[in-house]
Amino acid sequence: MTEDLFGRHEATLTAALDAIGGRGYWSPYPEAPSGRLYGETAPAEGEAAFKVRLNRPFPLEQSGVDGWIGAEISPYGDPLGVTYPLSGVDDLIGTARQALPAWRDAGPRTRTGVCLEILSRLNQRSFEIAHAVMHTTGQAFAMAFQAGGPHAQDRGLEAVATAWRAMSRVPSGSLWEKPQGRGEPLRLSKQFRIAPRGVALVVGCATFPTWNGYPGLFASLVTGNPVIVKPHPAAVLPLAITVSVCRDVLASAGFSPDLVTLLVDRAEAPVTREIALRPEIRLIDFTGSTGFGDWLEQNARQARVFTEKAGVNVAVVAGTADFAGMARNIAFSLSLYSGQMCTTTQTIYVPRDGIETDQGHKSFEEVAAAIAGAVETLLADPARAVEITGAIQSGATLARIAGARALGRVLLDSRDLVHPRYPKARVVTPLLLTSDEAGAPEGELFGPITFLVATEGVGAAIEAAASTVRTRGALTAAIHATDRAVLARMEEACLEAGVALSENLTGGVFINQSAAFSDYHGTGANPAANAALCDDAFVADRFHVLQVRRPAS
Amino acid sequence: MTEDLFGRHEATLTAALDAIGGRGYWSPYPEAPSGRLYGETAPAEGEAAFKVRLNRPFPLEQSGVDGWIGAEISPYGDPLGVTYPLSGVDDLIGTARQALPAWRDAGPRTRTGVCLEILSRLNQRSFEIAHAVMHTTGQAFAMAFQAGGPHAQDRGLEAVATAWRAMSRVPSGSLWEKPQGRGEPLRLSKQFRIAPRGVALVVGCATFPTWNGYPGLFASLVTGNPVIVKPHPAAVLPLAITVSVCRDVLASAGFSPDLVTLLVDRAEAPVTREIALRPEIRLIDFTGSTGFGDWLEQNARQARVFTEKAGVNVAVVAGTADFAGMARNIAFSLSLYSGQMCTTTQTIYVPRDGIETDQGHKSFEEVAAAIAGAVETLLADPARAVEITGAIQSGATLARIAGARALGRVLLDSRDLVHPRYPKARVVTPLLLTSDEAGAPEGELFGPITFLVATEGVGAAIEAAASTVRTRGALTAAIHATDRAVLARMEEACLEAGVALSENLTGGVFINQSAAFSDYHGTGANPAANAALCDDAFVADRFHVLQVRRPAS
Repeated sequence: MTEDLFGRHEATLTAALDAIGGRGYWSPYPEAPSGRLYGETAPAEGEAAFKVRLNRPFPLEQSGVDGWIGAEISPYGDPLGVTYPLSGVDDLIGTARQALPAWRDAGPRTRTGVCLEILSRLNQRSFEIAHAVMHTTGQAFAMAFQAGGPHAQDRGLEAVATAWRAMSRVPSGSLWEKPQGRGEPLRLSKQFRIAPRGVALVVGCATFPTWNGYPGLFASLVTGNPVIVKPHPAAVLPLAITVSVCRDVLASAGFSPDLVTLLVDRAEAPVTREIALRPEIRLIDFTGSTGFGDWLEQNARQARVFTEKAGVNVAVVAGTADFAGMARNIAFSLSLYSGQMCTTTQTIYVPRDGIETDQGHKSFEEVAAAIAGAVETLLADPARAVEITGAIQSGATLARIAGARALGRVLLDSRDLVHPRYPKARVVTPLLLTSDEAGAPEGELFGPITFLVATEGVGAAIEAAASTVRTRGALTAAIHATDRAVLARMEEACLEAGVALSENLTGGVFINQSAAFSDYHGTGANPAANAALCDDAFVADRFHVLQVRRPAS
Repeated sequence: MTEDLFGRHEATLTAALDAIGGRGYWSPYPEAPSGRLYGETAPAEGEAAFKVRLNRPFPLEQSGVDGWIGAEISPYGDPLGVTYPLSGVDDLIGTARQALPAWRDAGPRTRTGVCLEILSRLNQRSFEIAHAVMHTTGQAFAMAFQAGGPHAQDRGLEAVATAWRAMSRVPSGSLWEKPQGRGEPLRLSKQFRIAPRGVALVVGCATFPTWNGYPGLFASLVTGNPVIVKPHPAAVLPLAITVSVCRDVLASAGFSPDLVTLLVDRAEAPVTREIALRPEIRLIDFTGSTGFGDWLEQNARQARVFTEKAGVNVAVVAGTADFAGMARNIAFSLSLYSGQMCTTTQTIYVPRDGIETDQGHKSFEEVAAAIAGAVETLLADPARAVEITGAIQSGATLARIAGARALGRVLLDSRDLVHPRYPKARVVTPLLLTSDEAGAPEGELFGPITFLVATEGVGAAIEAAASTVRTRGALTAAIHATDRAVLARMEEACLEAGVALSENLTGGVFINQSAAFSDYHGTGANPAANAALCDDAFVADRFHVLQVRRPAS
């Protein structure tokens, strides 16, 4: 039965392996929320499936359920009213450990087949998940579908394929035959088994619960580790649906559904610190604040901890051959999901004396005005704007915008937008500020807050960007320049500082985007993250090789 | 020039890659200390090269040398009289960082070629290194040659090949082309570069300075990290020669020799804690005590720390089809290098009621007596015995033997042996004790000290062995049994406890031996080590992938 799952999805796995080896474009999951691609009834059925979840308990048959909790409120206005089973840490760890041996002993091929089937089923649920993502994170629907559905599934598949590749490099056995001169050779028969580290914990975030959660979830699960999924209290539903799909597939394949469980808590009574320090927890994947990520790295010493934390993403504008395209591209990247992406640029360094462009010399003020103008144009029509900005996930971000006005000169103020369909939605336009280098804030200001910082020339801009990456961490860096020497200098600075670089994006690709199978998301080389999605280092330490050797007969 | 080094050694690399994939027997470096294999004059020249090093400064042209120190005393009796340049931590970190960019930019192929050339040159120096290993560790010459020379080189080559394989999986670039319906596809050109973590530190041990040092040294170096080698103060010379060879090859290939430097300290004024916490140190490989290894893991948080620490290796004797062979095999394994191997069994669990054998039922006492008798027979001739036991590396081990007599019933007392050629050598025979389960000491007793522990049946023996592995850690576990169910139970227990298992070794393979390219040394799954030599996890996190993407023209 489970062998069949591997066979059913083997072509997908093979294509994924080719893709991660070649790192071109590839995806098995269509990114367009289209009935033509997913079935004509899929959009309506997905929305209905989401709506039927509202205002009732979410069915998950976990052990040791002691009450039901849930307090999600859609950034578009209404409480979801969904409650989730409150299982205790002891119960979930206990059932996970009981489920482990059979899952381990099933071996890489069977586990990979099951994980591929889970991903396939998640793909079929993309519309339902999209609505769940939209109404927890505040993403606009199209983005919630793409990033929360197929792109998240891509990242999950990438993790499965990368882990499969790693496990496949270990042979199941060997004959070791050592010559002994004229005597009989020494002969040993050896067996090698993949063993999981133990119980894994995935700590979800509020903005991209599936996209950031799937890599760790699937990397741990496919390598044999039971996974306890601990969502952010504000974004439980997308991961609850995910856990539910995992459990269904596992049970159908003859395994304990308790290999994947949901651990919910209240914002006012978090349980992550408690479970993260339990000796049974041997893997932790975390996406969230620098403070908590650092705490996990420092304290959860019994576990291998993978973190994606906050950063201050940087850009350098040193010149361009497409001034209008550059301004449009930057404007879109700052507006997309209201800057609530871990990849959104926060600080744009521009030489005080301006830059050369296809439209002639542009002063610092002209560059700033062009970007501000492009944002205004992009978001001029509220009905179109809300489909780009989405809603603000957390009220704290609104407060942060308010406070940020005092941190620089306001270039383009943030204003409230009324969502045509969700009048209670928290929707705003980005806040753009200018400052000189000394005045720019050092830390992350999460949300639609961007600083254009005037520097003493291009060299200072590059050095300031690199310094920010080194000290604050960054997931993205960008440069606009036409001078090959300037590009080379930025490339060198980013190599040294340890951040991925995008050059001269003026068209339909944006700095925010990170494509599975091709882009390494994060590098592990700067303070923003201690790992990358998805390289060998992300999977190789999730399992051990246990060998048995004996004289060969 | 450096490209040529890769070409020169490519066949060796290819064979090594085949070997680590198939995990059969393979080695490019002959293990016999034979002039026929290494050149008729090699043995004498190697010994002469060693002797010429004695009683003078060791030539290493490092930066910031502030004096010369050295206090090695051969376990065979005499001080070596070698002094080493005392470079400061700041100086070595500074020169390492200066050397890094050119080494990084040379790329995986060039670095791999240089590392393969270093290994080839080390192989040519095997006789000299063997004498250095012998007169620092106390190993007998034949073992010092094998383990300190070719087998250490094997482990280094295994690390180079494993890292090359990992780096090779990252393409240098790609064209990312995403279809856009009827429109032009989005096209990005991407570059991927391997970037090292930073400066690496290798902390050597006193018993196997090269065998345990080379994996980390080569894994870090080949992935682009400059390496500071910090030997144990009692075993500097083998690593000083190694560092010297590394520096020669690096300089010949056009790189800074300061990519590999030697950091010496005095036993009474250690510097490892200081350098280990420096922010520039991003990789640490450590072999040594549990206490210091745990301290590194807990405190050197800025670095990725790989540790091999102490453990209590276990064996279960539940039955055998070759009672005499079993006793001989165990006796040899306990005597080899006087139990000073990280792989030597410390505790042998035997059912109190005895076992079934090809010679009929044997009581616990008869099993114990057979092993003790085999040790006595093996070591009856002092001239032959010293070639097995070698000398005791540290005086502390003699004191430990003395103290251990009170910890059980003495089955076979340790006695002093007079070495026929080195009358001042510290040479002893093993101490064997018996005890019941409650009385067996829990912690490691490093050296030739073995406990035969009577248990309430085979099940209790297996459970006691597994419990010891879980709580104290172990690098090896062994079982002798004829009952397939008993073997399966032990296999399951070792899989759960996370230790490699050897079954029914009664011939010419011993539990102590761990063969590169085939045996994973350590698992990372129990407290004795947090990594294995040499799997993907040992190399994958030593480098990052830094990407640059730009619109494709």
